[in-house]
Amino acid sequence: MPSSDLSRILIKVKKGEMEIDEALDYLKDWPYEDRGFAKIDHHRSVRNGLHEVIFGQGKTPEQVAQIASSIWNKGGNVLVTRAGIEHFHEVRNTIPSSIYHQEAGLITSIQKTAQRIGKAAVITAGTSDLYAAEEAAVTLEFVGVEVQRFYDVGVAGLHRLLDKIKAIRKNQVIVVAAGMDGALPSVVAGMVDKPVIAVPTSVGYGANFAGLSALLAMLNSCAQGVGVVNIDNGFGAAALALAIVKSGRENR
Amino acid sequence: MPSSDLSRILIKVKKGEMEIDEALDYLKDWPYEDRGFAKIDHHRSVRNGLHEVIFGQGKTPEQVAQIASSIWNKGGNVLVTRAGIEHFHEVRNTIPSSIYHQEAGLITSIQKTAQRIGKAAVITAGTSDLYAAEEAAVTLEFVGVEVQRFYDVGVAGLHRLLDKIKAIRKNQVIVVAAGMDGALPSVVAGMVDKPVIAVPTSVGYGANFAGLSALLAMLNSCAQGVGVVNIDNGFGAAALALAIVKSGRENR
Amino acid sequence: MPSSDLSRILIKVKKGEMEIDEALDYLKDWPYEDRGFAKIDHHRSVRNGLHEVIFGQGKTPEQVAQIASSIWNKGGNVLVTRAGIEHFHEVRNTIPSSIYHQEAGLITSIQKTAQRIGKAAVITAGTSDLYAAEEAAVTLEFVGVEVQRFYDVGVAGLHRLLDKIKAIRKNQVIVVAAGMDGALPSVVAGMVDKPVIAVPTSVGYGANFAGLSALLAMLNSCAQGVGVVNIDNGFGAAALALAIVKSGRENR
Amino acid sequence: MPSSDLSRILIKVKKGEMEIDEALDYLKDWPYEDRGFAKIDHHRSVRNGLHEVIFGQGKTPEQVAQIASSIWNKGGNVLVTRAGIEHFHEVRNTIPSSIYHQEAGLITSIQKTAQRIGKAAVITAGTSDLYAAEEAAVTLEFVGVEVQRFYDVGVAGLHRLLDKIKAIRKNQVIVVAAGMDGALPSVVAGMVDKPVIAVPTSVGYGANFAGLSALLAMLNSCAQGVGVVNIDNGFGAAALALAIVKSGRENR
Amino acid sequence: MPSSDLSRILIKVKKGEMEIDEALDYLKDWPYEDRGFAKIDHHRSVRNGLHEVIFGQGKTPEQVAQIASSIWNKGGNVLVTRAGIEHFHEVRNTIPSSIYHQEAGLITSIQKTAQRIGKAAVITAGTSDLYAAEEAAVTLEFVGVEVQRFYDVGVAGLHRLLDKIKAIRKNQVIVVAAGMDGALPSVVAGMVDKPVIAVPTSVGYGANFAGLSALLAMLNSCAQGVGVVNIDNGFGAAALALAIVKSGRENR
Amino acid sequence: MPSSDLSRILIKVKKGEMEIDEALDYLKDWPYEDRGFAKIDHHRSVRNGLHEVIFGQGKTPEQVAQIASSIWNKGGNVLVTRAGIEHFHEVRNTIPSSIYHQEAGLITSIQKTAQRIGKAAVITAGTSDLYAAEEAAVTLEFVGVEVQRFYDVGVAGLHRLLDKIKAIRKNQVIVVAAGMDGALPSVVAGMVDKPVIAVPTSVGYGANFAGLSALLAMLNSCAQGVGVVNIDNGFGAAALALAIVKSGRENR
Amino acid sequence: MPSSDLSRILIKVKKGEMEIDEALDYLKDWPYEDRGFAKIDHHRSVRNGLHEVIFGQGKTPEQVAQIASSIWNKGGNVLVTRAGIEHFHEVRNTIPSSIYHQEAGLITSIQKTAQRIGKAAVITAGTSDLYAAEEAAVTLEFVGVEVQRFYDVGVAGLHRLLDKIKAIRKNQVIVVAAGMDGALPSVVAGMVDKPVIAVPTSVGYGANFAGLSALLAMLNSCAQGVGVVNIDNGFGAAALALAIVKSGRENR
Amino acid sequence: MPSSDLSRILIKVKKGEMEIDEALDYLKDWPYEDRGFAKIDHHRSVRNGLHEVIFGQGKTPEQVAQIASSIWNKGGNVLVTRAGIEHFHEVRNTIPSSIYHQEAGLITSIQKTAQRIGKAAVITAGTSDLYAAEEAAVTLEFVGVEVQRFYDVGVAGLHRLLDKIKAIRKNQVIVVAAGMDGALPSVVAGMVDKPVIAVPTSVGYGANFAGLSALLAMLNSCAQGVGVVNIDNGFGAAALALAIVKSGRENR
Repeated sequence: MPSSDLSRILIKVKKGEMEIDEALDYLKDWPYEDRGFAKIDHHRSVRNGLHEVIFGQGKTPEQVAQIASSIWNKGGNVLVTRAGIEHFHEVRNTIPSSIYHQEAGLITSIQKTAQRIGKAAVITAGTSDLYAAEEAAVTLEFVGVEVQRFYDVGVAGLHRLLDKIKAIRKNQVIVVAAGMDGALPSVVAGMVDKPVIAVPTSVGYGANFAGLSALLAMLNSCAQGVGVVNIDNGFGAAALALAIVKSGRENR
Repeated sequence: MPSSDLSRILIKVKKGEMEIDEALDYLKDWPYEDRGFAKIDHHRSVRNGLHEVIFGQGKTPEQVAQIASSIWNKGGNVLVTRAGIEHFHEVRNTIPSSIYHQEAGLITSIQKTAQRIGKAAVITAGTSDLYAAEEAAVTLEFVGVEVQRFYDVGVAGLHRLLDKIKAIRKNQVIVVAAGMDGALPSVVAGMVDKPVIAVPTSVGYGANFAGLSALLAMLNSCAQGVGVVNIDNGFGAAALALAIVKSGRENR
Repeated sequence: MPSSDLSRILIKVKKGEMEIDEALDYLKDWPYEDRGFAKIDHHRSVRNGLHEVIFGQGKTPEQVAQIASSIWNKGGNVLVTRAGIEHFHEVRNTIPSSIYHQEAGLITSIQKTAQRIGKAAVITAGTSDLYAAEEAAVTLEFVGVEVQRFYDVGVAGLHRLLDKIKAIRKNQVIVVAAGMDGALPSVVAGMVDKPVIAVPTSVGYGANFAGLSALLAMLNSCAQGVGVVNIDNGFGAAALALAIVKSGRENR
Repeated sequence: MPSSDLSRILIKVKKGEMEIDEALDYLKDWPYEDRGFAKIDHHRSVRNGLHEVIFGQGKTPEQVAQIASSIWNKGGNVLVTRAGIEHFHEVRNTIPSSIYHQEAGLITSIQKTAQRIGKAAVITAGTSDLYAAEEAAVTLEFVGVEVQRFYDVGVAGLHRLLDKIKAIRKNQVIVVAAGMDGALPSVVAGMVDKPVIAVPTSVGYGANFAGLSALLAMLNSCAQGVGVVNIDNGFGAAALALAIVKSGRENR
Repeated sequence: MPSSDLSRILIKVKKGEMEIDEALDYLKDWPYEDRGFAKIDHHRSVRNGLHEVIFGQGKTPEQVAQIASSIWNKGGNVLVTRAGIEHFHEVRNTIPSSIYHQEAGLITSIQKTAQRIGKAAVITAGTSDLYAAEEAAVTLEFVGVEVQRFYDVGVAGLHRLLDKIKAIRKNQVIVVAAGMDGALPSVVAGMVDKPVIAVPTSVGYGANFAGLSALLAMLNSCAQGVGVVNIDNGFGAAALALAIVKSGRENR
Repeated sequence: MPSSDLSRILIKVKKGEMEIDEALDYLKDWPYEDRGFAKIDHHRSVRNGLHEVIFGQGKTPEQVAQIASSIWNKGGNVLVTRAGIEHFHEVRNTIPSSIYHQEAGLITSIQKTAQRIGKAAVITAGTSDLYAAEEAAVTLEFVGVEVQRFYDVGVAGLHRLLDKIKAIRKNQVIVVAAGMDGALPSVVAGMVDKPVIAVPTSVGYGANFAGLSALLAMLNSCAQGVGVVNIDNGFGAAALALAIVKSGRENR
Repeated sequence: MPSSDLSRILIKVKKGEMEIDEALDYLKDWPYEDRGFAKIDHHRSVRNGLHEVIFGQGKTPEQVAQIASSIWNKGGNVLVTRAGIEHFHEVRNTIPSSIYHQEAGLITSIQKTAQRIGKAAVITAGTSDLYAAEEAAVTLEFVGVEVQRFYDVGVAGLHRLLDKIKAIRKNQVIVVAAGMDGALPSVVAGMVDKPVIAVPTSVGYGANFAGLSALLAMLNSCAQGVGVVNIDNGFGAAALALAIVKSGRENR
Repeated sequence: MPSSDLSRILIKVKKGEMEIDEALDYLKDWPYEDRGFAKIDHHRSVRNGLHEVIFGQGKTPEQVAQIASSIWNKGGNVLVTRAGIEHFHEVRNTIPSSIYHQEAGLITSIQKTAQRIGKAAVITAGTSDLYAAEEAAVTLEFVGVEVQRFYDVGVAGLHRLLDKIKAIRKNQVIVVAAGMDGALPSVVAGMVDKPVIAVPTSVGYGANFAGLSALLAMLNSCAQGVGVVNIDNGFGAAALALAIVKSGRENR
């Protein structure tokens, strides 16, 4: 509630246009709905289009379908992350137009097309990193970010990357998923001047320690402009990419 | 070298206006200077204003001063990171207008004011995280990003943060430095919809394991829109923030 | 055996009222039954009502049911922790009034209502932390501590917590279960002055390393008054909360 | 600000006894000072007597002395933690009655005696754990908790502990500091039914990995009623013990 | 081959009593069978009765049964470690008198009773540590060491141990298996003056990190006379105990 | 106090030869000195000659000298571990016959020669492991164990070890100190059938992580009969070796 | 494209033998196919015969079979790594002459025999390390390196190795696979002067932490001439061995 | 001793040409000097020219100088690794022609020029990795391997590497030192088909954990033909490179 609103209420009370009890009613919920903390309520997920997201892992198909229906019936689009085929079957029963993105482990149900708000590149070192990259890519498309995919361009065959670097540079933000030595984000960040979001994947074995090798490599990137998210966290990368794209739009 | 340039050379050869040896000379360095890979050469640090940066740690004061002079004499501004007072004394001998930012461990020498290109919030959980935050803040100011500082607003006294959240939200990107439990980026990211760059600091003792506790907490942030840089890497956070701000400008 | 008892025996020996052999018999078992170390025997679990607890994990349903019956037949209430549905089925065969708390993985069989001895708040950051929180909550109720549950009030949407903080403060001890960034105990402890027992959960993936991220964050809490128990150890949190509540009662 | 206060202001406005501007002034700082979040402001450290604490580590003697004077001049007692002898010399210049607790690394300056509010046992496994135990003990005495010290009663010579266990049990809360194998809290908690706060110390070498061995042992204690704080965090143990003692008092 | 044997062969060759080819045959396998390195061949496992041991894990039942038969048919006793019930069924087909020690995961087939060579105590902290303790105990009995078992005498109820300590002391070597806080070996070693072999078990969850907590605690034991083996390595403890018992016998 | 002593006191009381107060005085300290727990008191370190040991690290030279004098004046021999040259100078002031073993970091002061009770081999992989080996060797000699040293016989030049293996085998127990790859105990244990005590040293750099590489290798030894002590813990190895030697003597 | 080729094109253009458009077509893909970066394209895997390798793990049998057919139909030999029996069945449908190497988890399909280019020894410590060794051995044979296998020659029975060392020395490169204490590469490298490639295996349990113990031991090898590959990475060892053999050939 | 030698001795004994005592003398030292194990004696360091190497770390200048003199006086060249300037001063006193390689921490004293036996490339990612690279390079030159240095060609500015790749490929073996993200070996190995020896350096801070980040990245290299040595182990890399070069020479 802006100061002017508060002032208006006080004026009304003074003028007798508003009863004290009525004013009290307005003011008692005030911190959470109207002023300062109201902003807390309308927090980031509400504003960035990711508030409809359902984290599927650990939820039964029925639970997921129920939440999905609830969102859908209020007119919202639905995104389920870490979803299995069993979640999809249940959701499709209620929302027949739903799509299952198997590689990404995502379910999307769309009734109003998202406004196009920017573009991002999503890159992988190998084909086995696709699952994390697709989680990022489909999520970004869900919220209106156009995605260019550059897959399997890892540093062991550098010419594949060099070939694409011009196209990659044309995006506002670059998501790079890599496992094993986690070297790709460093190389990419050395050749573009856009923010690079590094997603370590758990791809590999032995001393990769379930993604630790790639994670540490990315945190220690010798190139500038790299931010790292959790291992396998393609969704988190998309959320950060979205925040970056939106921040750019607002500051025009 | 654009395709048209290549074409022009070939035409000249055909017409006899250029000797084959001369053409060979042009073409042999081509990939690195003129086309495709030329972009590699004019890579990110050149384009984002961070190319003058000198990493002071492990260098002698004389070495630092020498590189600084070289940059200065070509008309560039100078930024030395991880600099001690002894580096500063040596640099000041050559560039008297240099300033030492003790808290940040940075030396700046400025002869042309950076163009203002955006604004960022820099936040710390405690006063002991200042060193990393100042490294980020002074670096950002050096490249033209306006910085608002919000220090000592950690979660153990949450009202200090709530008081400032409105002002924080007005920035394009938020840098949050925190040690110990590393909780602040999660709380901030839950209340703003701008990209949050989390800088774990090595502040603490015992089971903080030199910053590991904050690092892991930040990578596992339950809020959306958080990218993490290396422990104590305030400069890295600034470089990422700069890339974000620039990406937003280019896409107007 | 208090000094007076020892003195009395010696006097009897002196007076010839007790034979030396009889005195020797008394004294030889003395350390374990009569004095000092007798207290060892009547150790904490006997005194705090948690001595009937059966740790179900790794035991067969038959073993669990057998121990449960034995306790039940002596008039005791039964609590089985880390119990599966198969344990429950077997226990119910013998003690039909038994209840299975699926979320908590607990079986309770109650024949005498526990005396109400205090009240505790049990809080979770997310719905996925419920299993650990319920293990704590049901255990506390089993021993007579009234429990108020505040679930899904994590720091990514802080207003949810702020809304409840007044009610939380009215309890004698606060149990907070959180996974991922483990930030909630720090925030809660910053707003209440009651002892906070932090339960790191293994909820998450990647760099949470099966609960390590939350564990380290909680050990490094920047707020005061936080004690940490093992990852996923809701029962341990309840046992500590019970000790705290009882300590308060005894010192009235 | 209780609802009645808000109501009173509105009545005054209505009656014309208070100008709108004056009411606005009252209300604009309201969330932080008067109502709901006021509780945040008067948060735990204010209420539990630990708000005067200065964390000495990383601060210059001058900084510490300045803050100490400021507290002292407002009539408060002063506690400086992680303080060196150089901090003490500077503080004593301003507050001559200050005392340096070398073992604990604490400075105390007392002008009003703390009210006695309870009693705690502080135990160590060896003499080398004294530093952490004294940090806890002196802090507790500073805030009015009576402390009984039981030092060097580790499990390698168990009779030393058995001799004292009766006296230990008479306290409301038990702080146990131990390094190396961290076994003592398990043994103590098996013999008392009071809350045990385990402080792992970094005492030892090799595979104790700077306190990790004791920390993990304590988190995995096979006895009930143990809460763990950070390695070497005697102050944190005292803060938790204080919260426990106060919680017991309030619920009389 | 002692020097005298070598000499004898040379004399025979000299005297013509042995052909050079025959002498060559003797000598060509010499280093491994007769001298110096012969000791390598008749190495420890041969001498201590553990050479018939079959490591079952990762072998098919058929493979295990085949090796077992081979040993049995040469008159040897058979011990299979890390054996499942399926291994037992196959072995019993060939050697009907075989016994399956389920708790220990061991199969034994005995045709000649081992000579009694000493006695050892095997102790566990809890009932869940039985598997490792039984692996040690049954192995020791297999090679002729008399075993006294003291199970479930962990430090959370210390009187159970105190009650048995006199009997424990009467053994030549003490094997102590414990998980979680791994405190028991420290306590035992503080009360006996025999060698204590500590076996960390992987029993527990969360921050026990699959036995790491107990392992580190045992390596850092504050009591004297403790040697540690690998996590869950009851067999290794038995092998060390056997070496200790044998060493004592040889030095009479 | 043996049962007969107790009986004798009771008889004296009965006969009036001892006053009850006098008897009470005897008996009040009884549990720790005379019976049951008396065994605790006369615990292992008392019985094995290691009770005079002073852990020098973290103690001032004055403290060490004071304790040393106290032991010396009661007729005991003195052993100070982890002692620096400054400790030695102070001790020598009081006990001029003291010797400083620089490599081992030990001070010994001997007034009564220890009875010879057995023999042990002490082996090192390299010359840089000497400090840990000497700590073990000098300690063993201090308590009467004859020591044969075999230094610098690591696996990178295996013939050096093979040359000595016959002599090594003649000892009752083998202490092997090795850093880096920690391979030597495995090789030695494969060639002798005596108990092998492995001492990982912190010698090395990089991925030896202060002794972790050798520690893990030793715990995973593929040879039988190996017990491991803490990194650099030569004293602990000696204490275990002593217990083994003594156990062998008692069972003659 | 060698400089001479470039020169030839220019000459043709000059002479009018080639149209400018035609020359542009040649030159536009030039960096990737003909010069500088052409080398990138014809990178190592192409040149060393390992370019046909298919990483089977995570691919469906159909995907594997499809890629295999594609390679086969172009006349290439096929190698599938980390292949299960289900992959083999599918591949054999298309390429009936395929062979499944179960121990190695490899499928090979050969239509042109590889030229013999050198020889390598492949050694294991135990029989349980075979899987990694066979992955290396079969891969080496696939590319034409003759392999001598020396299996189960670990350090716990050193004579087995000593017996073979002469034969081992005759190879150009030595691959050593070992788990647990990882001691074998150190011992082997101490006795041969050929490059030793150490493959840590995940064989073992407890404190081997899935291969970490062997990995650290190998990285800290006290012998000279050891290079380490990832845990269980027999294929990687083969690739390095191949590079070494080829490097030797080229430099004749 | 080949079988023919043994046969010859036996024949001599038979013929009376050799006394039995003389034969015994020959044969008793046989395993170590004459046959099989003689090879152990003339082990790798003797054969590859690295046997004169003195590991300086932890040795006093006097010790180093003494060993150096001893080698020098026998006509050998001297190499001291991990040497400080104080070691150099002492060595130069005895061997005035000695040279101190400060960056490498090496001392060399050369009286006979090493035969040129091959060539190696030594590469670094940054200038701060020079110390490890120079340790490798100077060591290689010491033993006769020609070295080409390519420094500061890290992946953050890839064109620097691309520019040199042709020259790099002309070497027989490639040593690559890199810290931080450890990405360079992967990129290099993707572009050359020579063996690549990766040296992780401890350069960096925070989550590089003293070289762990680079180490893990290199072990997980997605390119083929990479062997890894210990962190900062330039000397080890040189020893492996030397073994590779020598292996190639022998197989001509």
